[in-house]
Amino acid sequence: MPELRKDPVLGRWVIISTERAKRPKDFRVEPEKKSVTPGKCPFCPGNEKATPPEIFAIRPQDTRPNTPGWTLRIIPNKFPALRIEGEIDRRGEGLYDRMNGIGTHEVIIETPDHSKDLADLADPDFYNVVYTYRKRIIELKEDKRLKYVMVFKNFGAAAGASLEHSHSQLIAMPVIPKRVIEEMDGAKRYYEYRERCIFCDIVMQETRERRRLIDENNTFIAISPFASRFPFETWILPRSHKSNFEDTTDEELKDLCAILKGCLRRLKKALNIPPYNYIIHTTPITLKGIEFYHYHLEIIPALTHVAGFEWGTGFYINPTPPEESAAYLKNIL
Amino acid sequence: MPELRKDPVLGRWVIISTERAKRPKDFRVEPEKKSVTPGKCPFCPGNEKATPPEIFAIRPQDTRPNTPGWTLRIIPNKFPALRIEGEIDRRGEGLYDRMNGIGTHEVIIETPDHSKDLADLADPDFYNVVYTYRKRIIELKEDKRLKYVMVFKNFGAAAGASLEHSHSQLIAMPVIPKRVIEEMDGAKRYYEYRERCIFCDIVMQETRERRRLIDENNTFIAISPFASRFPFETWILPRSHKSNFEDTTDEELKDLCAILKGCLRRLKKALNIPPYNYIIHTTPITLKGIEFYHYHLEIIPALTHVAGFEWGTGFYINPTPPEESAAYLKNIL
Repeated sequence: MPELRKDPVLGRWVIISTERAKRPKDFRVEPEKKSVTPGKCPFCPGNEKATPPEIFAIRPQDTRPNTPGWTLRIIPNKFPALRIEGEIDRRGEGLYDRMNGIGTHEVIIETPDHSKDLADLADPDFYNVVYTYRKRIIELKEDKRLKYVMVFKNFGAAAGASLEHSHSQLIAMPVIPKRVIEEMDGAKRYYEYRERCIFCDIVMQETRERRRLIDENNTFIAISPFASRFPFETWILPRSHKSNFEDTTDEELKDLCAILKGCLRRLKKALNIPPYNYIIHTTPITLKGIEFYHYHLEIIPALTHVAGFEWGTGFYINPTPPEESAAYLKNIL
Repeated sequence: MPELRKDPVLGRWVIISTERAKRPKDFRVEPEKKSVTPGKCPFCPGNEKATPPEIFAIRPQDTRPNTPGWTLRIIPNKFPALRIEGEIDRRGEGLYDRMNGIGTHEVIIETPDHSKDLADLADPDFYNVVYTYRKRIIELKEDKRLKYVMVFKNFGAAAGASLEHSHSQLIAMPVIPKRVIEEMDGAKRYYEYRERCIFCDIVMQETRERRRLIDENNTFIAISPFASRFPFETWILPRSHKSNFEDTTDEELKDLCAILKGCLRRLKKALNIPPYNYIIHTTPITLKGIEFYHYHLEIIPALTHVAGFEWGTGFYINPTPPEESAAYLKNIL
């Protein structure tokens, strides 16, 4: 019998379709081949001039910006979804609303090595990536036109990556996105009723029941969420309450890197280098120390197509029960 | 300069990214080849036994159910997302909620001819498809466990169709999906403020301005919506207020078929047989004659990937301004 499950934060229903239950092997696809000659890739060392000038780089002191030698670079997106110049200008057009696209759209080139995926990076290099996310959020907080900073990664063409050289993206925007408002609202409703953070309660229940627990360390847990939309969907949550990702300490960041790298390696091993997205879900930069919301990271393997049913309903059919996903991912390394 | 636009019903922001402006030729892909030998397809005449027994068929009186001769068949989905047997059973599990998957999941086989797409069907056959949608909704309304009937079509593997023989799907479910609740809520807020239906106002503004108008007839208009999420996204709305699709008269259904078939042919010509989804957005079957909500049909060509940014924000980057989509689709036939 299929089962409907409700995401406790968003109120989003998911159908866990046991009739179509699928195991990892059903999803194993031929990994996408790297097709670009490394020398021709605009993200490779030696081609720094092919990108807009760097915003930040981790590089030896004796090298100049936009030259080789770096281990990580942040550059503006060459085709930015938003632009940093100008003042916010909101206008109506009959019943419609529009505004100009103020914001930033940055690319974090995670490694000079074209052949490496994020999951392959040595621990210090991996740490630099996550450290850079935090650093840029803290810097962008100073720009009072901006309300939200979204950090995300698309890996593989099927997950929307247009370049294969390993990178993440950051978009800072002048509005709080609808999805974030919905999450904040859902978490607030729970808090008003129970006087507890819903994410803290999720951490409590999942560490007690352990059926959906994939991994844990001192600071974080990784789970297959109860109402997973997708096979092998994985969430990483801090054990202790923290609303803003950018308030994570250096010590905690190390634990985040350890569990995130582990999860990416698990997915890679289970599914043969699947395309995926991950997104940091955090509090708007205009807010601080919120009691009812708790930052977390969501990893979504891109194994199934979003189709008419999902578009129409906003709810999802997931052919792999999260308990099975968790059991599989837990034991694979 | 990129522009942010807000969907007036959902409050969903979209980035219209003029930096990356894309024309139809940028999206033209090799059409998916039909790969199944027609005789082996479970939806082809002669293979009726390969599907669950039919719920309804349009067939000559002298033919028996589940034998050839039909022009349209409705069958239960062989791997249903929901099942019709049993009573609703809602349960908690700690802080989570689940219920059993009561409902129906039906497949409408639109034609016996494996080689034909919906857009190729003769007018009477096309009418039968849309007529059947209405008929099944009216029948399923009698089942008091059900709250919503979703009719949708996935065309092409990239849009989630697992079988290539032309078909639509219908899912009747015991909960009102989140997306529908959001649309109803958004429309209601507008109604409370203005005392007018927002969809009626959209029809008014679009027929006056005409910049996003693709096609029109006595009963319907087709537009590229102001805050289109995707290139060549197309909505069909009744000119006059009507909350429930199933209340469409026979005469109006003919006009719906004419404009829908036209839109599918436009997309086919513009984009070289693109994969697409369409969804009928209508009022829950438990409600009738709602003043603030107005049914419509949304067609989404599956040309771009949903990636980390969209998952994280619930808002979309669209590289083709809807005014350009509309101008192109309008003149193509």
